[in-house]
Amino acid sequence: MQHFILDSKLENDTYAIGTLSLCELRLMDDARFPWLILVPARVNMSEIIDLPEAEQTLLMREISCASTALKTLFAPDKLNIAALGNQVKQLHIHVIARFISDEAWPNPVWGAGQGMGQRASYPPHMAGSLIDRIAKELMPAGLKAA
Amino acid sequence: MQHFILDSKLENDTYAIGTLSLCELRLMDDARFPWLILVPARVNMSEIIDLPEAEQTLLMREISCASTALKTLFAPDKLNIAALGNQVKQLHIHVIARFISDEAWPNPVWGAGQGMGQRASYPPHMAGSLIDRIAKELMPAGLKAA
Repeated sequence: MQHFILDSKLENDTYAIGTLSLCELRLMDDARFPWLILVPARVNMSEIIDLPEAEQTLLMREISCASTALKTLFAPDKLNIAALGNQVKQLHIHVIARFISDEAWPNPVWGAGQGMGQRASYPPHMAGSLIDRIAKELMPAGLKAA
Repeated sequence: MQHFILDSKLENDTYAIGTLSLCELRLMDDARFPWLILVPARVNMSEIIDLPEAEQTLLMREISCASTALKTLFAPDKLNIAALGNQVKQLHIHVIARFISDEAWPNPVWGAGQGMGQRASYPPHMAGSLIDRIAKELMPAGLKAA
C-alpha cells in the first residue's frame, strides 16, 4: 500500500498548519496574501473528480471551513478558490483572501513573470503566530494542529 | 421576492447550455479553451460559503459533472476549477479543460494584459455544435437544455 507523501514543491513553498479529516492544511509562504492550501491526503490524485463522491463532499466542507476562517481572521474583499495543478500535479486547492488593495487585484495571484511581483516570504516569527491563529480558528472544525 | 438574474458581463461573454439543479451552465465564448461556467441560480451570492451547506454539496456535484463532461469530450491534460469573482461579483465557477499545447500553459487562463493573448470568439456555427455535444453529455446528470 502506498502512503501519502506531500509533493516536494508544495512542501517547500508552504508551512504545515495541521490536518483535517481529508486534507493537510498548509499556509503558503507568501506574505502578500493570506493563502491556504488544502491537500487531500490521498495517493495519486490530481483532479477533484479522482476523489470518490463522498470525499468530494468532504473536500467542499473543508474548503468552506478554510474560507470561513480566512473571512473571520482577515475580512477580505473576496475569496479566491482554485484547483489548478498545471505546475504541481498533486491535487491541491488554493483558498486565498483577496483585497482590493493587494498587489495583484483584480487579477489572480498566479502568474509571476506576467507582470506580477515575486513571492515575499514571511519573517519566521510572523509565520508562527499566523499559523497559530489559523489553527485555533479551525480547531472547532476538527483541525489537528501540526 | 427577488429573482435570479444572470450578471450582464457573464451573459455577454458566454452562451447558455442549460440548467442543472442548482446552476446555470454556460459556455465561455473563447475558442482557445473548452471553458464552462457554472452560475448558482441564487440571488446575492458572491462566495461559495454564502450558499447553505446542502447547496455547497450540490455545487460540488455539478462541478464534478461538468468536469467529467469536459474530460470525456476533450481528454485534457488538466482541469482548472476556480471561483474567483474579482471582476464579476456574482458567484460563478470556472471549469476549464487545459492542454500542454494551449497558449496559456502552464499559467492560468486569466490575466489578459499580463502577456496573455485575447479571447477569441467561436464562429457561431461552431459554438452551436459544441453546445449540443456538451448538453448531450450532461443530460444523464439532469441538464435541461437551454
